[in-house]
Amino acid sequence: MIIEENHSKKECTNRIIAIHDVMDILNGKWKVSIIACLCFQKMRYTDILKEVKGISGKMLSRDLKELEANLLITRTVVNTQPITVEYEITEYGSTLKKVINVIADWGFEHRKKIIAK
Amino acid sequence: MIIEENHSKKECTNRIIAIHDVMDILNGKWKVSIIACLCFQKMRYTDILKEVKGISGKMLSRDLKELEANLLITRTVVNTQPITVEYEITEYGSTLKKVINVIADWGFEHRKKIIAK
Repeated sequence: MIIEENHSKKECTNRIIAIHDVMDILNGKWKVSIIACLCFQKMRYTDILKEVKGISGKMLSRDLKELEANLLITRTVVNTQPITVEYEITEYGSTLKKVINVIADWGFEHRKKIIAK
Repeated sequence: MIIEENHSKKECTNRIIAIHDVMDILNGKWKVSIIACLCFQKMRYTDILKEVKGISGKMLSRDLKELEANLLITRTVVNTQPITVEYEITEYGSTLKKVINVIADWGFEHRKKIIAK
């Protein structure tokens, strides 16, 4: 669906509600990055912590819990020595790939624009 | 660009950086909604406040300032009686339409899924 000038006010309001739902699920600045990592491969906690630069352990734990509660990722304890915890994107979570790709593409263009200045 | 299993680790890291840039610009749960409103039409401060349900005046003022600093919107004082302040999306800001449409579409599908439960 495309935002057009002739969208009624009601349609606009419904879009705002839909967007708000998404931003509630993807709140904070790290969740989209975490999901993007997991779209790429399943990962251990410590690997996500390394990949998502700047996130603290506390925030990562909280974000992973919330993403799991929203059925976007799964958490699996693997019986290795020592025990490891793996995170994997769910089928539902992977429907966010399109959103993430569009965000990443815009980010690449934005970076080009900023560097060109 | 599509996230594929065979993306190198470097590519993945670059995507994470690009995503992080975007989430830095669109941080908080309201900015995407504010931009979505302004994609639809230019609006006065009080109209945005009504449309974006749940946002406080303080947060809206802060978010509008940050969006203006990132050249995504413009602020115009209109010499009416009393003076009004209008916000309008910039040409650059409107490049976010695609991102916002994809987010809104996912939100609509998500709502359907939640309601179906």
